Amino acid sequence: MSQKRDEPKPQAAPLAAIPRDKADDYTLAMVEQRRALWASVTGSAPRYVAGAPVPLEEARGKIENLVGFVQVPIGIAGPLQVDTTLGKREVYVPMATTEGALVASYSRGMRLLAAGGGARARVLAEGLTQNPILVYANAAEAARAAELVWKYFDELEVIVRRITRHGKLVAVRPEPIGRRLVLSLGFTTGDAIGINMAAHAADLVSAEVAARTGAIARYVHGQDVEKRANARAFVEGRGRRAVADVTIPRAALAELARTTPEALVALWRTYTVGFAELGTQNWLVQSANGIAAMMLACGQDVAYVTESAVGMLDFDLTAEGDLYASAHLPCLLLGTVGGGSGQGTAAECLDLLGCRGDGKANHLAEIVAATVLAGDLSLMAAFASHEFVAAHEALGRNRPPT
Amino acid sequence: MSQKRDEPKPQAAPLAAIPRDKADDYTLAMVEQRRALWASVTGSAPRYVAGAPVPLEEARGKIENLVGFVQVPIGIAGPLQVDTTLGKREVYVPMATTEGALVASYSRGMRLLAAGGGARARVLAEGLTQNPILVYANAAEAARAAELVWKYFDELEVIVRRITRHGKLVAVRPEPIGRRLVLSLGFTTGDAIGINMAAHAADLVSAEVAARTGAIARYVHGQDVEKRANARAFVEGRGRRAVADVTIPRAALAELARTTPEALVALWRTYTVGFAELGTQNWLVQSANGIAAMMLACGQDVAYVTESAVGMLDFDLTAEGDLYASAHLPCLLLGTVGGGSGQGTAAECLDLLGCRGDGKANHLAEIVAATVLAGDLSLMAAFASHEFVAAHEALGRNRPPT
Amino acid sequence: MSQKRDEPKPQAAPLAAIPRDKADDYTLAMVEQRRALWASVTGSAPRYVAGAPVPLEEARGKIENLVGFVQVPIGIAGPLQVDTTLGKREVYVPMATTEGALVASYSRGMRLLAAGGGARARVLAEGLTQNPILVYANAAEAARAAELVWKYFDELEVIVRRITRHGKLVAVRPEPIGRRLVLSLGFTTGDAIGINMAAHAADLVSAEVAARTGAIARYVHGQDVEKRANARAFVEGRGRRAVADVTIPRAALAELARTTPEALVALWRTYTVGFAELGTQNWLVQSANGIAAMMLACGQDVAYVTESAVGMLDFDLTAEGDLYASAHLPCLLLGTVGGGSGQGTAAECLDLLGCRGDGKANHLAEIVAATVLAGDLSLMAAFASHEFVAAHEALGRNRPPT
Amino acid sequence: MSQKRDEPKPQAAPLAAIPRDKADDYTLAMVEQRRALWASVTGSAPRYVAGAPVPLEEARGKIENLVGFVQVPIGIAGPLQVDTTLGKREVYVPMATTEGALVASYSRGMRLLAAGGGARARVLAEGLTQNPILVYANAAEAARAAELVWKYFDELEVIVRRITRHGKLVAVRPEPIGRRLVLSLGFTTGDAIGINMAAHAADLVSAEVAARTGAIARYVHGQDVEKRANARAFVEGRGRRAVADVTIPRAALAELARTTPEALVALWRTYTVGFAELGTQNWLVQSANGIAAMMLACGQDVAYVTESAVGMLDFDLTAEGDLYASAHLPCLLLGTVGGGSGQGTAAECLDLLGCRGDGKANHLAEIVAATVLAGDLSLMAAFASHEFVAAHEALGRNRPPT
Repeated sequence: MSQKRDEPKPQAAPLAAIPRDKADDYTLAMVEQRRALWASVTGSAPRYVAGAPVPLEEARGKIENLVGFVQVPIGIAGPLQVDTTLGKREVYVPMATTEGALVASYSRGMRLLAAGGGARARVLAEGLTQNPILVYANAAEAARAAELVWKYFDELEVIVRRITRHGKLVAVRPEPIGRRLVLSLGFTTGDAIGINMAAHAADLVSAEVAARTGAIARYVHGQDVEKRANARAFVEGRGRRAVADVTIPRAALAELARTTPEALVALWRTYTVGFAELGTQNWLVQSANGIAAMMLACGQDVAYVTESAVGMLDFDLTAEGDLYASAHLPCLLLGTVGGGSGQGTAAECLDLLGCRGDGKANHLAEIVAATVLAGDLSLMAAFASHEFVAAHEALGRNRPPT
Repeated sequence: MSQKRDEPKPQAAPLAAIPRDKADDYTLAMVEQRRALWASVTGSAPRYVAGAPVPLEEARGKIENLVGFVQVPIGIAGPLQVDTTLGKREVYVPMATTEGALVASYSRGMRLLAAGGGARARVLAEGLTQNPILVYANAAEAARAAELVWKYFDELEVIVRRITRHGKLVAVRPEPIGRRLVLSLGFTTGDAIGINMAAHAADLVSAEVAARTGAIARYVHGQDVEKRANARAFVEGRGRRAVADVTIPRAALAELARTTPEALVALWRTYTVGFAELGTQNWLVQSANGIAAMMLACGQDVAYVTESAVGMLDFDLTAEGDLYASAHLPCLLLGTVGGGSGQGTAAECLDLLGCRGDGKANHLAEIVAATVLAGDLSLMAAFASHEFVAAHEALGRNRPPT
Repeated sequence: MSQKRDEPKPQAAPLAAIPRDKADDYTLAMVEQRRALWASVTGSAPRYVAGAPVPLEEARGKIENLVGFVQVPIGIAGPLQVDTTLGKREVYVPMATTEGALVASYSRGMRLLAAGGGARARVLAEGLTQNPILVYANAAEAARAAELVWKYFDELEVIVRRITRHGKLVAVRPEPIGRRLVLSLGFTTGDAIGINMAAHAADLVSAEVAARTGAIARYVHGQDVEKRANARAFVEGRGRRAVADVTIPRAALAELARTTPEALVALWRTYTVGFAELGTQNWLVQSANGIAAMMLACGQDVAYVTESAVGMLDFDLTAEGDLYASAHLPCLLLGTVGGGSGQGTAAECLDLLGCRGDGKANHLAEIVAATVLAGDLSLMAAFASHEFVAAHEALGRNRPPT
Repeated sequence: MSQKRDEPKPQAAPLAAIPRDKADDYTLAMVEQRRALWASVTGSAPRYVAGAPVPLEEARGKIENLVGFVQVPIGIAGPLQVDTTLGKREVYVPMATTEGALVASYSRGMRLLAAGGGARARVLAEGLTQNPILVYANAAEAARAAELVWKYFDELEVIVRRITRHGKLVAVRPEPIGRRLVLSLGFTTGDAIGINMAAHAADLVSAEVAARTGAIARYVHGQDVEKRANARAFVEGRGRRAVADVTIPRAALAELARTTPEALVALWRTYTVGFAELGTQNWLVQSANGIAAMMLACGQDVAYVTESAVGMLDFDLTAEGDLYASAHLPCLLLGTVGGGSGQGTAAECLDLLGCRGDGKANHLAEIVAATVLAGDLSLMAAFASHEFVAAHEALGRNRPPT
């Protein structure tokens, strides 16, 4: 590490506070004030940040101190053939990324899926967990509270029903650890991710339990399960648990990817040895890439890629000598209602997928699962045929000079 | 789960292949062809996706099948005061997100940092690992190869030097697992993330070792360390290992956040019990939020939030009764050269931070670390003062109807 | 590593097969034949191995190729005061070990517990899991099977009832991973560990499910949960989930252990940082020591120390300035019926604890939990007062020459 | 859980303190006093505990409050053919256990190894880690200390040399986490486990570093790596890192175990899916069984089975259609000098293996590794041929009545 210490230039004066208008902070006037602040730092107003045509109003409730819009290139991969809960679909998949070769890799994977008649994808379970922790005077009190909680379920469920029509408390599991009691709460959340609802509900539910059982402290987010890969969610699932699979004929693998089922199974076998030693909950190959690119295109919260990328790839040789492949994704955190999904480019991308609005979140999860499967197939096939480095050399020209 | 099965409408015909022009795929004509394809699916051309003013040319090498640009609102948090390797800085931090209250939360955390005289942040180590696996006839052969590899280092280093001026092979650690040999390679990568260089180098290095030691199989990405939280990287670090810390006076905590050092230490203590049981490598509170928002604004590859969010928060009561807080981030994967960092909104945001181009990657990592610390302080303070749910209710109006 | 290569002497001839008598292999004559074989290797018959007075007959069903008995010194720690499900008890705790200072350390911890009025210990849950895996043609078949399994529960429960009067199938949770279906089965097992019963039952249950649902492969021990620390069991528990806690007055800590609640809380805080980075499921200090020593004395299967040592210590400062301490042990695998518990030294040690035979397994688990708490308190107090190295110097004279 | 609450009878008076003689606590008189205490609880003196012929004197330094000796049956498995650092060996392996069928299972595995010409086993690395934590005023101080530590190595090595002739400080790696500095120390320990030496050395080394760098707190066992499975040791190894492998002809598998290489590879493949989801560092099948039984026979500290059982099994089909199998054991904690290894039944068992005393610890580790491989092969073969449950039914008659 040899840091040059000549930059940046010393700042003459402290920076001004960011101007905000409590009455309405999303007017062009306010945004322009902040762009002027930006210019006072860099010497010129931001051109691209300021250039997007979406009405400023649409940012309301999604961000503070708005100055404009980031732009990331979108390409489309596909067509993707996938059998979903809503029937057989064929879609172009919008992916936003600056990693050269990524969209091409997913497109190639989708051709592999098509050669197998398309992927089949299903959401197998859904539910958002939130795990408050209550603290008691001692372990006896915590254990007593745990026994009581089982009996309170109906009343707790009513408390949640009062604050939401879309979410529902479906499980309460009290788990004592010494004098602390983890209240593992499970919610269904309709087509939204539902974290705000769940946090609100967890606050009310844990307050009620605390009051009835004499807790001496209460932490609404005590076992903080949000936006982190973890061993518990890998087993239990969180958000939407989806699976996609396909059987790809040996001949198609040879023709489209110049590899064999045996080569992919052997490659995967070595991967599992590597993953075992790593201590990871992400046993897929490039799930983070595909999920991040789709999340970004579709107005999802990309911080959830931490959780959503968790899962397991599987390759097997079938009795007929073909390749069976599946992608297990137990923690897809995404929604088609709320968050950033409702307008602008996000809404357009969701429209392209036929996944906008009510009744579509599981459908989106299924398309994501099929896309992850496509990408992992494609990348593993590239590795197996030793084409990986070459492909990046040809397509990915955004690398720094070497 | 009650899926409505009436949507979407059956597709009359299979989708067309996506038009590509091998000679030049980034012309307006080609982009328009793909937008027409989009319209053929949705009934109308995408308006926002097509609307960004950045020259299409700039997408070259970063994406295939370009159709336009996704737009995500950017707000600015700050000012952030931070003592870095490049001296004391005061910056506005651009954050792209659609999670209401997030920018406000980070801004509040930056005020807390300022009350402690600003954060101090440093990159302590840097280096990208890539772990090919070689397979031998048996464990004896793998062990023999492991002994030889130690002796080859100088020659392997020369091989890497031939393909890059910016990267450098700095470590080779051969680790036998049965008859497999994990070749743990460490590279410095200058101001880029450097994964393409490292993958290319790992291919050459592993091929050389395989040839010299008689490996029977070779997997360039055998122990796939890319874009997944893992226990190994949590200890060893990957990318840039950064730390940020601050001491916040008791009075400032009371005034700005209505809480006390004791309350935060107790809250953190309960968090550690929860995290221990979760089995996670992310022992921070909302690192994924701040890192994803900055990555998105600054043209980073957001798929790396999986790795980058890993780390550890720490709160302690000082002898003087104030709050000591630190954020340890061993795996920040980011760069200021290459990838999506060089143009458009990304370049503008890096400019705002004074982090564009050569010699700035560690500086960016230090600002990210300070920002993560700000966000975790702010959120924990909100939790401690029971304001969390209320804040979201007031600011976050993007929730679906409850 | 500098291996001397002159030893041992080359063997003139291959070793003979071990003599066995299929009719009755536990007679003195057969044992003597094997001792003669031993002498043929070492030059003399084993004296100590042959010297134990327990009737050879008692080894029947517990071992094959019997040659004698290993001897490990037993000391007694205590008295231990503990409030259990069977009332308040005061017991001497038999511990078999060759680690000097261990029994003394536990005894000191028991004095600390006594100063707090004794520990309180409870088993909070019990149940043995066994997780067969069924494989299907594809993920759709696996998902279909998962739905059916829920409906079969009553019939599966009857199948188990046919083979055992002491065990009971209490839970079946089907968990698809791609085309594999993990059948997470939960059993109660009375006062035995019950693994043989559970394995037998898992075989029958999985065979039944496989037949009804058309599985193409079946692995009775597919997700092998036996005798390994793991993240899943850390959350769910396995065997008996026990907790022990105590509040120790500040004055007693000072007098008996020359330390303070604050010092222990600070020490524990640093431990949690270390454990977080280690990636372990054992968040206790020396649980393995106490559990192994008690298991060995009480005829338990010491291989289960792998699972049983998992858990979490907790230290807190009370409002009154005293030390609250708890030990959470979610996976105690032990029994007072079956295995090696029924005769010889094991039966005598169980008698000493008042834990022999029916109705005593949870009681034993509670005493183990209290003992673990005593040992962790004692060792942490020794660390906190910097006495650790000194104590080992004085008591542990079995070290090799330094 | 339905606890009977009628037992045990209320205790009339508190238990007496355990009699100890500070001058000499290992005389028959003192042991008899404690046996009398035992009898006062149970009504009669312990017969078996008191019956072992080993001189009481031999327990000195290994235990306190001696009352006698626990007895566990020993059987011998084998012969085991293994190619070690000390040449080709053929040995009977002493195993102490009460798990019926275990010795028979290992013996069968040894026959499988013999059919492949015997196992080959090697220790690939050795070294005991100990990780003190120093705390500094802030992260800057911790980072500065980390840089200094690299320069102190020679002086620290001298400090260790002063207290031991057998151990040696071979590595110091300073790892900052916020303001805490983990000092990862590596020692070689000759033929002992060496934990007492390492703890003493870690105390001196950390005190020296703390004094020179101005640490504000010091925790000798801060990152407590002793006797717990953990992700760090799984990668880095601890104690002795051993590997054993073998290639077993297809015909031998069919004849001796009624299974095929393909069946074992498929079974193992499913195991890896199960283990991945479990989040374990023990990727072997029954390593805990074999290691615990050998440790117990050979006077090792069985609490170390927690760490030692960690590792990875591997099965592959060779080009010739045979089975390649390996066992990777990175954390074998055992010694042939010190601890309980020097006398009585332990010394006899080490003699049987040709592993007693100086220069034999790695040899013992190699025999353990080969034994683990034998046991895992045997059990997996039994599972593959569906004989598992049947074998336990026939041999294991120590189960409770079902």
